[in-house]
Amino acid sequence: MDRILIGELGQHVGETVLISGWVDVRRDQGKMVFFDFRDRSGVVQGVVLPGSEALETAKEARQEFVVSVTGIVNKRPEKNAQAEKQNGDIELEVTGVEILAKAQELPFEKDTEINIDTRFDYRPFTLRSERDRDIFTVQATILDAYRASLKRQGMTEFVAPALVGGDAEGGAAVFKVGYYYDQTAYLATSPQLYKQIMVGVFERVFTIAKIFRAEKSATTRHLAELTQMDFEMGFIKDEFDVIAALETAIRDTVTEVAKQHADIFKRFKIDVPHLGTKFPILTLSEAHATLGVPAEDDMTPEHERAICEWALKEHDSDFVFITRFPTAARAFYTKTAEGKLSRGFDLLFRGLEINSGAQRIHDYDEMVQRIEERDMDASKFAFYLQAFKYGMPPHGGCSTGLERFTMKMLDLPNVKEASAFPRDMNRIDILLSKPID
Amino acid sequence: MDRILIGELGQHVGETVLISGWVDVRRDQGKMVFFDFRDRSGVVQGVVLPGSEALETAKEARQEFVVSVTGIVNKRPEKNAQAEKQNGDIELEVTGVEILAKAQELPFEKDTEINIDTRFDYRPFTLRSERDRDIFTVQATILDAYRASLKRQGMTEFVAPALVGGDAEGGAAVFKVGYYYDQTAYLATSPQLYKQIMVGVFERVFTIAKIFRAEKSATTRHLAELTQMDFEMGFIKDEFDVIAALETAIRDTVTEVAKQHADIFKRFKIDVPHLGTKFPILTLSEAHATLGVPAEDDMTPEHERAICEWALKEHDSDFVFITRFPTAARAFYTKTAEGKLSRGFDLLFRGLEINSGAQRIHDYDEMVQRIEERDMDASKFAFYLQAFKYGMPPHGGCSTGLERFTMKMLDLPNVKEASAFPRDMNRIDILLSKPID
Repeated sequence: MDRILIGELGQHVGETVLISGWVDVRRDQGKMVFFDFRDRSGVVQGVVLPGSEALETAKEARQEFVVSVTGIVNKRPEKNAQAEKQNGDIELEVTGVEILAKAQELPFEKDTEINIDTRFDYRPFTLRSERDRDIFTVQATILDAYRASLKRQGMTEFVAPALVGGDAEGGAAVFKVGYYYDQTAYLATSPQLYKQIMVGVFERVFTIAKIFRAEKSATTRHLAELTQMDFEMGFIKDEFDVIAALETAIRDTVTEVAKQHADIFKRFKIDVPHLGTKFPILTLSEAHATLGVPAEDDMTPEHERAICEWALKEHDSDFVFITRFPTAARAFYTKTAEGKLSRGFDLLFRGLEINSGAQRIHDYDEMVQRIEERDMDASKFAFYLQAFKYGMPPHGGCSTGLERFTMKMLDLPNVKEASAFPRDMNRIDILLSKPID
Repeated sequence: MDRILIGELGQHVGETVLISGWVDVRRDQGKMVFFDFRDRSGVVQGVVLPGSEALETAKEARQEFVVSVTGIVNKRPEKNAQAEKQNGDIELEVTGVEILAKAQELPFEKDTEINIDTRFDYRPFTLRSERDRDIFTVQATILDAYRASLKRQGMTEFVAPALVGGDAEGGAAVFKVGYYYDQTAYLATSPQLYKQIMVGVFERVFTIAKIFRAEKSATTRHLAELTQMDFEMGFIKDEFDVIAALETAIRDTVTEVAKQHADIFKRFKIDVPHLGTKFPILTLSEAHATLGVPAEDDMTPEHERAICEWALKEHDSDFVFITRFPTAARAFYTKTAEGKLSRGFDLLFRGLEINSGAQRIHDYDEMVQRIEERDMDASKFAFYLQAFKYGMPPHGGCSTGLERFTMKMLDLPNVKEASAFPRDMNRIDILLSKPID
């Protein structure tokens, strides 16, 4: 008999079928055994009736055992049906159980709340919890929908390198790699320079790139290894063209996640992100004025949260753009708008910056001048500067943190929860030996 | 006036339009100037007629200058039309040129053949050649089509880590990373162990992952940083289920690339890959027998080429699967088929292995035993082994090298050509200082 997915059982009422999956739950009632079986498409309740030939094996099959099950798909009596639940109106009357793989005794109940370090210590097991399956189901949809939106906007995907020859941008702490012949390479802290080079080739490009940050930071917002969804576009008028393209990508993504995963938002007991009619755009000084606080050169985490509350209240939007940060506070390639203010912007989502972008300098001489003004060595940028030497259009772009976007989409308390295999100061899969100093 | 893409000009004959792009070619004939303008959508010929107000700026605008051009879209006289070429039947009568960015004198003609090292030294410039734009246009389609096929096959995307805690698999030379507190991390040589863990979560998964190989190898088939398109699927009968899923993904991808890029295959003067009705599958010993050579434990590069020639001739297929390699020659988690032979396989494409896969061991005890048989330390695999401890279905998967697939799709002589920013023993963007020893 061919295997049928659990999600398709509703179409086979009255038939004898074969399913395969894990024992999600087992309730042994002596003469009868109840199961929840789980496969990639969902969950269904199974029952082994008294006297069934399957009873002996059923009693052996504990949680997380991998099984193939034959049974008859029965309609549940009206009074027992659970309309809210997948397969809530059917039940599998189990006639045979084959054990494909055993499971040892579980370290703890799969769906109990446990502290985050234990969760990561047992990651191969805890990822099977409904909560984690939900998180990474949403993350897969974010990746897919974001890419699809950028593609529709005429952008070409490219592969940015993770190994780089120098810590070009400076600033962010960087991991060193032992390269051939005792030379040192570095792990990329951003695909930025390559993205700009590719604007010279394809005009509009995107990349989903790994980046690495060695900051000694152990907050709920930091990871040592991250995934960035970057795009960059040529022939813009100014940074507001980038902001418009980004708003489209975010709207498309949220809309798709909401469409596919209403059940997950319900389980997480949070609203689908509010999109308003248009994301509000405030300059940094307007943001501070709105909050009634003194002007500063950046937003504090507290002010980021407060301005998002304002945006939700006044514009029904969980997203808000902040523009006109001081040029001095932004990366060297950021274009100046007027005076000391830049064409850089941030996108805040539910109180957290999830994207940073800007119009960039495109003129070769201006770029060299800026590099020198910052006391950086222009000769170290010779490769990158070729793109500007040989004709670069006005352009800009931005970078969305996949883990932060996922975190805020489901309102998770810690960004590490949005990384299947988080790396931080103290952990690569397992806790590293040395304690925090 | 709003900008129109060059690829859409054919719909605007007789109209005055604005385009933006690069000067691809300029032919100054004194009283007149001819241009090819290029944007992300294609190329069009422009002409500045004698006496035009645009003439002065047109003479200034050399190759790779970034320009905005206004002009009238004219139908070319029948005798001048070039039916083969994009926009071959129209011409832009230029009435105004605005220079958005200048370009310095080019280091060499953009589309001339130059040696591969010079090409990489000037990568930001040479990527603008038609050849390179073609290669990375095809690569973007491969990524997109491959992912789409896996998604259709019920697979969930996940993000595999690049930083790992140990060189678990052993064998492949590995790059070391200076991690926090003077600890050592490593760059992943494969997402394999994580992929298997995720089978326990989503049953069918895929990831497009960066991997890093520190082999001291400078062949035309090796890179230090690679992109792998990996999938892994649970509840298989044996490795032939994996082979079938892979064949579907490859067919879908080749078909999509062929559909979208017939022009590129024409420019590269090669056939779209032949797919036959079914990719032939030979055991290693059948392959050697077919070639009339003595049995060996692996395929030599020469034999890989020869068996692909056979497959093309006998089965009209540029692809051929080789199965039943000795277990001893495959990774530790490879399942044994019978005797000393494994359930591992390779997929060869136009003479080169582009994919390697297998059914894996799924039983915990069998896996621990195998690790110990290989004199590896099972305690180092404790994190990975959790997945097996808590119930793992029969499963298998495989890994396609994006750069190798791209290389053979367009029959490129060197895999480095299929990496936008190749890293090898001697190069990270620029040549590293130390010579080959």
